[in-house]
Amino acid sequence: MQKRYVIIVAGGTGSRMGSDLPKQYLPLGNRPVLMHTIARFTEAESSPEVVLVINEAMHALWNDLCEQHHFDIPHTIAYGGTSRFQSVRNGLLKIVESVRQPLEHTLIAIHDAARPVISPELIDRCFEEASIHGSTVLAVLSTNSVRQGTLACSRSIDRSQVWMVQTPQTFRGDIIERAFQQEESSEFTDDASVVEKLGYTVRLIPGDHRNIKITFPEDIRIAQYYLESPKI
Amino acid sequence: MQKRYVIIVAGGTGSRMGSDLPKQYLPLGNRPVLMHTIARFTEAESSPEVVLVINEAMHALWNDLCEQHHFDIPHTIAYGGTSRFQSVRNGLLKIVESVRQPLEHTLIAIHDAARPVISPELIDRCFEEASIHGSTVLAVLSTNSVRQGTLACSRSIDRSQVWMVQTPQTFRGDIIERAFQQEESSEFTDDASVVEKLGYTVRLIPGDHRNIKITFPEDIRIAQYYLESPKI
Repeated sequence: MQKRYVIIVAGGTGSRMGSDLPKQYLPLGNRPVLMHTIARFTEAESSPEVVLVINEAMHALWNDLCEQHHFDIPHTIAYGGTSRFQSVRNGLLKIVESVRQPLEHTLIAIHDAARPVISPELIDRCFEEASIHGSTVLAVLSTNSVRQGTLACSRSIDRSQVWMVQTPQTFRGDIIERAFQQEESSEFTDDASVVEKLGYTVRLIPGDHRNIKITFPEDIRIAQYYLESPKI
Repeated sequence: MQKRYVIIVAGGTGSRMGSDLPKQYLPLGNRPVLMHTIARFTEAESSPEVVLVINEAMHALWNDLCEQHHFDIPHTIAYGGTSRFQSVRNGLLKIVESVRQPLEHTLIAIHDAARPVISPELIDRCFEEASIHGSTVLAVLSTNSVRQGTLACSRSIDRSQVWMVQTPQTFRGDIIERAFQQEESSEFTDDASVVEKLGYTVRLIPGDHRNIKITFPEDIRIAQYYLESPKI
């Protein structure tokens, strides 16, 4: 049985939310977004160990929030860097320092803190597929027509080939660890692209349109609705 | 002053909604989705004449709904064809039959019936820009990373160049009329692609992430929330 981890990346600055507080700390129903996100992973059968990457300046606030909400799901804290790449790398270091088995016997999911609606079933599926294929990424097809280019000049592209990438992105430990030893590059748009740079193929698995990333202020209400309502 | 029209295309079968009734007839707050969509256009300063393209089999139901909801916004009915292309063409024919000025002095917007959250301001902007550029399409950038390809084999593409196409798509009357005289083709993924086939450049203008197309059952609740809440 492979040892499972999730790195939850909570490094966003919340600038698009029109709020001073990064979006993962905003209340969603009875507690902050981030607590929901963490709880989804402990509800999954795969029940990975949680490494939470937060901005160092938010550590005291996070401790206060945990106390206030009696939040007792065990998690290790790593501090975020100045980019997502660095934040994930810092999270990986925490795992590498503490893991007792070879990294090829581990599976590591990376998940956005601002995606609290991820279903436990889908989390399990990510770990299962990553154990077979080495790397898997959740993605959904666009429900709209898609064009590529600029406002002034663009062309239609086949929407049945255009995937909106979600998280978790899940990898065998040795693969993701080696990927993040590379120099940071502007080509790295997500964790999958870091792994691809090493020459690995990244397999997509169908995600869920409800697995939204909270980006705009009203997304909090949408997430709340999804969490409260049974899947139709 | 150019004469303005909107063709509202209500040809969907609702199969993805888990409902027998096409989604544009489902209740959204106090009345069917489609009545909201039509009303958004009459709230716009550009206040276009409305041509509604519906499935012939739904005409009696639509009349009943209009009576029941005292819906009195004037609109012309055209019947849908077996494809979106044919439905739009039928809508265009209604305009061509009744218009009194040359088509180059008209502007025609085409809008999905299932997008009831379009703002009147954005409708006006579409007509303004189309009067300058001849054709404009609303589109928003993806908030997620984007990959192109299949589940098994895909590659990252630059998300700052990937546009999710919305409606209205708005055109000078003579351009759109000539475009829809072409043979139908599987290349035609939306109205813009029909116009491009003639050699015209289609200009994108930034849309609104709230301008959702009701696709999944829970989208009704999201649309309701957007309609009720002021823009933040």
